[in-house]
Amino acid sequence: MRVNYKNTSLISENEIAGKVLELKEYLRKLNEVAMVGGYDASEASINLPADESFLKKAKAFAKDKKTKKLKYVVVIGIGGSNLGTQAVYEAIYGTLNIALKSKDPKMIFLDTNNPKLMFDVQDILSDVKDKEEIVVNIISKSGSTTETVANFEVLYQFLKKRIDGIEERVVTTTDFGSKLWQKAEEKSFAVLEIPKNVGGRYSVFSSVGLFPLALCGVDVKSLLGGARLMRDECLNEDFQKNPALASAILTFLHYKKGANISNSFFFHSQLETIGRWYRQLMGESIGKEKDKNGNVVHIGITPIISIGSTDLHSMAQLFLGGPKDKFTTFVNTEFQKSKVAVPKKMIFDGLVEHLNGKDFSEIMRAIYEGVKIAYQKNKAPFMEIILPDLSESSIGQFLQFKMMEMIFLAELLNVNAFDQPNVEDYKKETKEILKINNDFRRNRTTD
Amino acid sequence: MRVNYKNTSLISENEIAGKVLELKEYLRKLNEVAMVGGYDASEASINLPADESFLKKAKAFAKDKKTKKLKYVVVIGIGGSNLGTQAVYEAIYGTLNIALKSKDPKMIFLDTNNPKLMFDVQDILSDVKDKEEIVVNIISKSGSTTETVANFEVLYQFLKKRIDGIEERVVTTTDFGSKLWQKAEEKSFAVLEIPKNVGGRYSVFSSVGLFPLALCGVDVKSLLGGARLMRDECLNEDFQKNPALASAILTFLHYKKGANISNSFFFHSQLETIGRWYRQLMGESIGKEKDKNGNVVHIGITPIISIGSTDLHSMAQLFLGGPKDKFTTFVNTEFQKSKVAVPKKMIFDGLVEHLNGKDFSEIMRAIYEGVKIAYQKNKAPFMEIILPDLSESSIGQFLQFKMMEMIFLAELLNVNAFDQPNVEDYKKETKEILKINNDFRRNRTTD
Repeated sequence: MRVNYKNTSLISENEIAGKVLELKEYLRKLNEVAMVGGYDASEASINLPADESFLKKAKAFAKDKKTKKLKYVVVIGIGGSNLGTQAVYEAIYGTLNIALKSKDPKMIFLDTNNPKLMFDVQDILSDVKDKEEIVVNIISKSGSTTETVANFEVLYQFLKKRIDGIEERVVTTTDFGSKLWQKAEEKSFAVLEIPKNVGGRYSVFSSVGLFPLALCGVDVKSLLGGARLMRDECLNEDFQKNPALASAILTFLHYKKGANISNSFFFHSQLETIGRWYRQLMGESIGKEKDKNGNVVHIGITPIISIGSTDLHSMAQLFLGGPKDKFTTFVNTEFQKSKVAVPKKMIFDGLVEHLNGKDFSEIMRAIYEGVKIAYQKNKAPFMEIILPDLSESSIGQFLQFKMMEMIFLAELLNVNAFDQPNVEDYKKETKEILKINNDFRRNRTTD
Repeated sequence: MRVNYKNTSLISENEIAGKVLELKEYLRKLNEVAMVGGYDASEASINLPADESFLKKAKAFAKDKKTKKLKYVVVIGIGGSNLGTQAVYEAIYGTLNIALKSKDPKMIFLDTNNPKLMFDVQDILSDVKDKEEIVVNIISKSGSTTETVANFEVLYQFLKKRIDGIEERVVTTTDFGSKLWQKAEEKSFAVLEIPKNVGGRYSVFSSVGLFPLALCGVDVKSLLGGARLMRDECLNEDFQKNPALASAILTFLHYKKGANISNSFFFHSQLETIGRWYRQLMGESIGKEKDKNGNVVHIGITPIISIGSTDLHSMAQLFLGGPKDKFTTFVNTEFQKSKVAVPKKMIFDGLVEHLNGKDFSEIMRAIYEGVKIAYQKNKAPFMEIILPDLSESSIGQFLQFKMMEMIFLAELLNVNAFDQPNVEDYKKETKEILKINNDFRRNRTTD
């Protein structure tokens, strides 16, 4: 993974170096967490890439559930329970994966309680007759996520009516000892563990991501290998060799100068879901009412996701002409010809100059370079992340890089990277309303 | 469509009324544009819903191309040429439309030049043998959009090799007399016109959207009917009866108070693509380097899209705990039971209280009400748009409402709602690079 920000970030190396000093102590602590291993520290997630036990267990479970007939893997989870899996899956298999004739098994995601989505998933699954054609993976860290439990109950009832032995095809992923864990064991569903100190948004390299991805053919060993490589890079004290440190400091300094928006600008559309995963990572890790000392600070940077070249046709005007309230990270891959090329003899010859015979990668490269020049001319600050390719190893590197970046960024902002206290604000109200609805019904019945 | 902002927008009616006065003159002008009709004014797009000619032409073309065998409609376009169509299509047919067994024909979108996307579209189309199974609609207002032309050339070559008479199944949508228009006529492709003064982001109710939507079974008459209804509402001088006026003023006043982010928060996941359409509408219409008088102002509000309940599990922490830099518009529908309900006898009984027997709509309603209470307690300002349902008429209303809102908002900000001058900044550079690549090749060849 290459990183470039000199001359484009509009931040001097001196400014960065000053902030590195502030993080020196914390970096030492992180190195210690990595050395000790295990899952006791708040930062425990950084030990996942170096832990083969989850990999082994996920692969063993996948081997057990994988059959020649396997067509669908339904992942029921929301937020940290499915975003990482979805991100890796789409990065590898593309945005149209669900419709491909050449791809089996296919992963289907049920997150929110959308009746139309549920009907459509049932439409897609209507041809499943044999239990070996399907696996259902319900994932909830707490074990009591409303939407996840509701989706599972409805889908399970649908499948139970149609497929003998469906209970053998359910895998439950949750915290050890949660209520869901207990109930799943009662029902003899298979159960996978999430380490307690690893929060949802940092859990993609645990059984949360590794099991369903392995089952669908993703090379999870390479994924984890890439993450391990990057984990070690991001423990380096030299910011020139530590992309997470550099990126966190650049984002922090731009935030201090008024950039309250962080734009992740991916130049491959199949990386958009990585952007969604990153939204949670940034939104929950540093969007905070209070700092570590309990002071009310209302801090936070709003992550936005852009896709090249698609969003150039909708957002470039704002990005180039609008206010200087963003710091942008372009994410692209090293140049490589794609084998998709415009014919030399075009039907619409002369509409666009110099297009004949051009490989898609050449066109996209020209657009990408054009955008970077325009950003520089318009003094819009950015950094570049250039991945070797879109392989599992590269994706693993990128996700780990971003998780480490967020841990550093939270430290710079003096907020807790691992909690999300304000989420309770609406959950509490929702529970109250569900309860009132019930009381209302009960009263009506007894009237 | 119901609108609610009293007590939740944190803006008083007096403040709103003050701004209404500023827009009085402009509103009169808009009413005149509507009275005169036609497509001469900059604001010409507001006349599309009242113009039956595009509807008739789109339906006639659709009737001509629609066959019993029709399986795929491939829309090749980017930005304003496909976002509106995609928005309506997904709102009606859901996010999994491409994989549904029960839905024919299916719409496939080719926007950016992504080799993986092109391979996957070819994989999906590999079973098409008969020209009657497919229609290709290439859409480019200028007629010279790089990605659109490149995608068309590659796909057309692929289809030409496999399908006899494919040229009869191409429909070209572009400005009258553009180079693309001329070349399409030379090749005897069917051609549909976009009115010259209607820019891409305001063109969904022209042939750009109406033809492919009609072809795929969308009730375009109701769509346009809803838009017409809303157009007339949004010409009302009383802001209490004019949702676009109210929404524009609220957004403007919050922008002036420091909210540089506009959050469109949809409580049906199939409306997400409407959010993408809105990103362009807002990004290009009011993201401006210069105001109408030519002063450098670097003005703009960054649109973000959130999905309930999905994004509550990733962004609620930031929205509730983070900085007060957003004005939120919740978009939901009137309550209606969905016929998808959690079984009364649950497998995982006791994990989530009060869930047994609950309809999905009841669960989502409890979450929605919970979020609104949490927003109010946290002093996060918002307004609500409640659509009657997700029918074509409702979608038409919403899109027209948003286009009118943007025209008012641009007027309040004193910027041109209809141009996008800074987009040229990168396009110019890209063309230069494509040219240099060519020169480089030529030189190498002659070496």
